[in-house]
Amino acid sequence: MAVYTEVSDADLDAFLRQYDIGEALSCKGIAEGVENSNYLLQTDRGNFILTLYEKRVARDDLPFFLGLLDHLASRDFPCPTPIHGRDGAALRDLCGRPAAIVGFLAGMWPRRPSPDHCRALGEATARMHLAAADFPLRRENALGPAGWRALFEATRDRAHEVHAGLARAVGDELAWLEDHWPRDLPAGIIHADLFPDNVFFRHDRLSGIIDFYFACNDFLVYELAICLNAWCFEGDGSFNITKARSLLAGYGAVRPIGRDELAALPLLARGGALRFLLTRLYDWLNQPEGALVRPKNPLEYLSRLRFHQGVKSPAAYGLD
Amino acid sequence: MAVYTEVSDADLDAFLRQYDIGEALSCKGIAEGVENSNYLLQTDRGNFILTLYEKRVARDDLPFFLGLLDHLASRDFPCPTPIHGRDGAALRDLCGRPAAIVGFLAGMWPRRPSPDHCRALGEATARMHLAAADFPLRRENALGPAGWRALFEATRDRAHEVHAGLARAVGDELAWLEDHWPRDLPAGIIHADLFPDNVFFRHDRLSGIIDFYFACNDFLVYELAICLNAWCFEGDGSFNITKARSLLAGYGAVRPIGRDELAALPLLARGGALRFLLTRLYDWLNQPEGALVRPKNPLEYLSRLRFHQGVKSPAAYGLD
Repeated sequence: MAVYTEVSDADLDAFLRQYDIGEALSCKGIAEGVENSNYLLQTDRGNFILTLYEKRVARDDLPFFLGLLDHLASRDFPCPTPIHGRDGAALRDLCGRPAAIVGFLAGMWPRRPSPDHCRALGEATARMHLAAADFPLRRENALGPAGWRALFEATRDRAHEVHAGLARAVGDELAWLEDHWPRDLPAGIIHADLFPDNVFFRHDRLSGIIDFYFACNDFLVYELAICLNAWCFEGDGSFNITKARSLLAGYGAVRPIGRDELAALPLLARGGALRFLLTRLYDWLNQPEGALVRPKNPLEYLSRLRFHQGVKSPAAYGLD
Repeated sequence: MAVYTEVSDADLDAFLRQYDIGEALSCKGIAEGVENSNYLLQTDRGNFILTLYEKRVARDDLPFFLGLLDHLASRDFPCPTPIHGRDGAALRDLCGRPAAIVGFLAGMWPRRPSPDHCRALGEATARMHLAAADFPLRRENALGPAGWRALFEATRDRAHEVHAGLARAVGDELAWLEDHWPRDLPAGIIHADLFPDNVFFRHDRLSGIIDFYFACNDFLVYELAICLNAWCFEGDGSFNITKARSLLAGYGAVRPIGRDELAALPLLARGGALRFLLTRLYDWLNQPEGALVRPKNPLEYLSRLRFHQGVKSPAAYGLD
């Protein structure tokens, strides 16, 4: 939810002359995408999304992200398709920032996800994992376990401002996860940020997945651990096992989940909760000047972490 | 620049069934319009703007605003056209707020207004004044001189937080304007907020004027006084007389400016500067919790006020 950079009409016209997508009819900053400036661009040829990459996205990562979208789109996976300019490049500069145009994806994200949404999400996630299997580039998960300690160190001294005892709870969990994190599970490219606002539906059918700017190489089942956190808790903090079962069944119908993957799910779900707890805590304590974003409450994820800590077996997620 | 209300997909679908404009393909909050929540709504029939009126817009004023747009559109003035539902109504409720859909207006607002933009603005403003002349509803200017004292009283005690001596400067000017404000100039309906971001252009031709939510009955030439403030100062605070001359010449070519109107222009320009100084000061001191808006700096308008205070005759605005 951010628009940081003001693009002038003259700059935009010059930028668009490098493409073959017609001329701008309008270009409006939209309240989507936390990390970048996004604009809904309408030309006489159609609708597009123009993204200016702000400083939180590393320029060196952009060929990975845009290449992945090209790769997935070429396999008919419903994701934004990068638009290549007359010179063949999908990535160039606008207003001093890296910028790209992607095709517009119709649909709306579900404000109240249902079990059916979760099943469709599971199926699409598995299809995405399979479609990305032969993508040749790699990107480490900067927000995986190796990145958590740095976030912890950057937040521990002020964590009590958010919640008494939070630094201790996070520190204990982090130490435990560092000791127990699995080393050998099926891995590949994951989206790593599959929250409801990144998944579009039309008539309850999944129409597209967006915002691949955390995509990376990691355990495939860690993606499901994130989805359990992001889709299967209700507003009151309770866990909806029907949604979890639908999510996992949808995924498993396309790519069977291995026994080792299932066994690791409770631990990975703790990791997923800790990851969002840490990044939200960091953002809460470090609100950038001029951002149009209100940080999300980190404590939701402390509550989710507590839930997963109490899980004794994958059966808690609706699995047999 | 605000999106305050989250509209769910289910609520939107039910809302759209009251219209004959097709079904939603997407609906994205856009970073335009300070007072309301605006969404770019795409259906299988076209593009629209959905507006939810937040609390700063009085519900009783909405028939005036929407009726004015209907009236202007019926006279081929390029403004957003209200979409009427199957029941004939243009105004209904969504998510507990008054809501309306208007047609989408292509174009982009000029980030760097040129004299040609100012001339086109002047022409369109005069056409708008003439087209609105027989609109039957009335609305007082709540932010005209009668409203300034209340804003002053609400800000004077903390004005020094923004600038030393500001309360005194504003109070003196307000007293002077109250004594000297004209009583008898040609009046009619004015837009009253003709800033560059409310005026769209395509290929340097004016394609539309939006955001009529300050429209009211007032002196017609007061509109030009606001435009002088909003369009004719450079980023460094200097006054661009070429732009002012173009603005007034464009207007005068469509609706001649009377001698009494010209004579009043320097005084009205002081009033226009004070109006935006006061509202920006109020917003600066009263930032709403949760707003995605950064208030604009009020001091720009102190500097503009100082300029107009030094003007001895309309010649300073490029007039002969």
